[in-house]
Amino acid sequence: MSKKERTAIQPTREENYAEWYQQVIRAADLAENSEVRGCMVIKPWGYAIWENIQKTLNEMFRETGHRNAYFPIFIPKSYFEKEAEHVEGFAKECAVVTHSKLEEDGKGGLKPAGELTEAYIVRPTSETIIGASFAKWVNSYRDLPLLINQWANVVRWEMRTRLFLRTTEFLWQEGHTVHETSEEAMEETLQMLDVYASFAQDFLAIPVIKGEKTEGEKFPGAVNTYSIEAMMQDKKALQSGTSHFLGQNFATASGIRFQNREGEFQHAWTTSWGVSTRLIGALIMAHSDDDGLVLPPKIAPSHIAIVPIHRDETEREAVMAMAEKIEKSFKNTRFEGVRVYTELDNRDLTSSERNWYWIKKGIPLRIEIGPRDVASNSVMIARRDLGPREKQSVAMDDVVDYCLKTLSEIQSNILERALKFRQDNTVKIDTKEDFYSFFTPKNTELPEIHGGFVLSHWCGCPDCEEKIKDDLKVTIRCIPFDAEEEDGKCINCGAQSKRRVVFAKSY
Amino acid sequence: MSKKERTAIQPTREENYAEWYQQVIRAADLAENSEVRGCMVIKPWGYAIWENIQKTLNEMFRETGHRNAYFPIFIPKSYFEKEAEHVEGFAKECAVVTHSKLEEDGKGGLKPAGELTEAYIVRPTSETIIGASFAKWVNSYRDLPLLINQWANVVRWEMRTRLFLRTTEFLWQEGHTVHETSEEAMEETLQMLDVYASFAQDFLAIPVIKGEKTEGEKFPGAVNTYSIEAMMQDKKALQSGTSHFLGQNFATASGIRFQNREGEFQHAWTTSWGVSTRLIGALIMAHSDDDGLVLPPKIAPSHIAIVPIHRDETEREAVMAMAEKIEKSFKNTRFEGVRVYTELDNRDLTSSERNWYWIKKGIPLRIEIGPRDVASNSVMIARRDLGPREKQSVAMDDVVDYCLKTLSEIQSNILERALKFRQDNTVKIDTKEDFYSFFTPKNTELPEIHGGFVLSHWCGCPDCEEKIKDDLKVTIRCIPFDAEEEDGKCINCGAQSKRRVVFAKSY
Repeated sequence: MSKKERTAIQPTREENYAEWYQQVIRAADLAENSEVRGCMVIKPWGYAIWENIQKTLNEMFRETGHRNAYFPIFIPKSYFEKEAEHVEGFAKECAVVTHSKLEEDGKGGLKPAGELTEAYIVRPTSETIIGASFAKWVNSYRDLPLLINQWANVVRWEMRTRLFLRTTEFLWQEGHTVHETSEEAMEETLQMLDVYASFAQDFLAIPVIKGEKTEGEKFPGAVNTYSIEAMMQDKKALQSGTSHFLGQNFATASGIRFQNREGEFQHAWTTSWGVSTRLIGALIMAHSDDDGLVLPPKIAPSHIAIVPIHRDETEREAVMAMAEKIEKSFKNTRFEGVRVYTELDNRDLTSSERNWYWIKKGIPLRIEIGPRDVASNSVMIARRDLGPREKQSVAMDDVVDYCLKTLSEIQSNILERALKFRQDNTVKIDTKEDFYSFFTPKNTELPEIHGGFVLSHWCGCPDCEEKIKDDLKVTIRCIPFDAEEEDGKCINCGAQSKRRVVFAKSY
Repeated sequence: MSKKERTAIQPTREENYAEWYQQVIRAADLAENSEVRGCMVIKPWGYAIWENIQKTLNEMFRETGHRNAYFPIFIPKSYFEKEAEHVEGFAKECAVVTHSKLEEDGKGGLKPAGELTEAYIVRPTSETIIGASFAKWVNSYRDLPLLINQWANVVRWEMRTRLFLRTTEFLWQEGHTVHETSEEAMEETLQMLDVYASFAQDFLAIPVIKGEKTEGEKFPGAVNTYSIEAMMQDKKALQSGTSHFLGQNFATASGIRFQNREGEFQHAWTTSWGVSTRLIGALIMAHSDDDGLVLPPKIAPSHIAIVPIHRDETEREAVMAMAEKIEKSFKNTRFEGVRVYTELDNRDLTSSERNWYWIKKGIPLRIEIGPRDVASNSVMIARRDLGPREKQSVAMDDVVDYCLKTLSEIQSNILERALKFRQDNTVKIDTKEDFYSFFTPKNTELPEIHGGFVLSHWCGCPDCEEKIKDDLKVTIRCIPFDAEEEDGKCINCGAQSKRRVVFAKSY
């Protein structure tokens, strides 16, 4: 927009990014806070995005040989205690079930009763409970690899929550696999990171950096943690998926042993990997604008809003006939393998209200049909990824072709835009002064949006990492796979370094 | 089978029905008990059945205008207490979360810490927590009807559990809807019962009786509860789905009010309805035989096992070529709209082991291919719904057509068989003596399997219902919709009655 117009979302990203995020969610009716501390309600439009994420990932998991299963939501406290780092990582924020019923408290209310002999933890992640099953399932190298995925809800008692990004309960998938050798487990770990990266890029239109987490940032109990890191529009990083090489840590804790090809018993090698409803937060923050949600067509619950405009009964009849004809013409159509869904919106609201409704919901295309369009046998089509007032006249006969082609174009346009944004906001910095200056908000009207991804040298020591985190709230997002070997000096202590890592503020 | 052969499942149904059920589950690798009290692990083959159930029901729910959403797993104790009957119904068997972390207990272990000011209940059902959201969403008659469904895990602390049939944690869907009028809510309640009945019959191949529950058997807090009741092979009933007309009870408890067409505020009318992983138990018990699981093709995770048989490298090459050609020929084929999946099983096991593996898993068709089949350019095909030794020779060119046609045939054959079984075991009884005798196991070698569905008159009073339940463990399964009006006398007290109800033992 060249001149300053009032946008549908107030405040704008520049004015107050955090509040803009909440308002986009509210305007698109994706989710809301519940009265249960830190737990969200995912509303139909938001849940439909999650279902599309599930559907697409499920196919990718299946193609790579994984099968879905389901394990108990409760983890006995004793299981949880088996892996020392693991329990330390999760004990401070878990929901503990201590009783199995309620009984009258004598004051007209109810109190917990039936105390359990052993407390249960509502799963914050399932390595230990799934490990207990795997220990029974795995006996011989012939049982391996064991490739399992679970779709589930998990609970981590978060202090400061934010819809989708950090909630006490969230939905996710967790892959858990068992292997004969360390090499094979590592191959699986990296393969699943690739699956996540492809999914983020090809479906969510979010470019990501693949890399390894530092010792301080890895999953509690893992040997190595890998992640995909995405840049949001406030230039912060969002960790969007993780894949863990667990070595023999959890196999030892859970007793996952097998008879190897030499007839000897040994502990197996395991992995785990997950993405969650956090991805919806990433989607929102990567693509949305000051008019609301922008959805990549390949993950959108619906693709085309058809908005008929009529003032009287005569107009209504002709316009609706055309609208219904268009709706019908999309039946069983697909773009890039994705089934096209349409929404014929003839609600008793003004056309402007209906248009803005769908703009705020991020539907990729809108087709407006009024009496003049009937007369000219053409319609006006608006793309959500362009400005709200840009519309294209398309002849009736071309509508389906135009829309299918344009849905693909929108998908790649959104990805390219996100890629360009990341490139424009990624810099190499070689002096401590520049580094600190880069991450210090300038005294402007836009305090929230600053920084970016900084590629700097790091000596590898936790103290330097910690110092920068303490000073600037900047963390090492990952040691990127594609970093070239290069001599340099640690941005904090000046010690020798062999490659650059990615520093950023993050969610 | 004419003569007595050793079957794959030991004991047989007749010998020990309850144990047979466990063994079918184990042989098909559907699920197992976990070490978490009453919680099961659903293994890939069992979970794939659940995914097919989800997929099919999801389409049916969507077609009837429902949308999926997700609500918190935790219910604050105060919400739970709002509806008196409801809390009474569930308070005795619920998981209570009282703490938000674990800390060192000074003895090398961990103890619950961070006591919550208000305890949370892990949802046993979500009327109250969803009601809290609905109260915010509904303001005007224009917001109605509100038609929501949730797929979720729920927890009820069961004392005696049995895989799929009764577990502490189970998976289900729960529909929750809000309406402007009582009539509309009742229409929805009955519509969803119809959806369940169609699904049971058309996909699970289980005939069901639709009817209303008695006062004593209805859902805690409902005005009316309706159910579908199926007969298992031990002649017991299994309640397979319920739909509740909640009147204004929960709307009043949760404050779901709206401005009606007259501009006045009033409480809305709500419904809820659900089916669960219990349906998998119904599937198993309705159709399986003494050789293991029998799956209706329309709900089976996979449809055709291809078992190549070869003794040396020359045979292997020709046989595998044919097996792969067959597998390829099923790509993108469908029967009755259902995508066909195949399993080419060339594992290093004898052909008998592989055949029995798939028989026990209930795969609808098996294609065996040996060197002689290669020579004759035909294959042997076995149907799971017939005896394990019945096989049909089919020419290569006809294999796809034969299989697609036969999958449909198996689906209807299984349904017809279940229907016939129910008919054969449903009787009208008019004297108390006959009634008691019918439900008393005769002193035979088959104590478990007896009884059936009995259509008898009932005066409508809870005492008569209770007496029969106490004496015989027989309950009124439902007051069937299709019962014709007929004068009769209550089977217990002899008082006047206008129609027969369905009595049976049940799960």
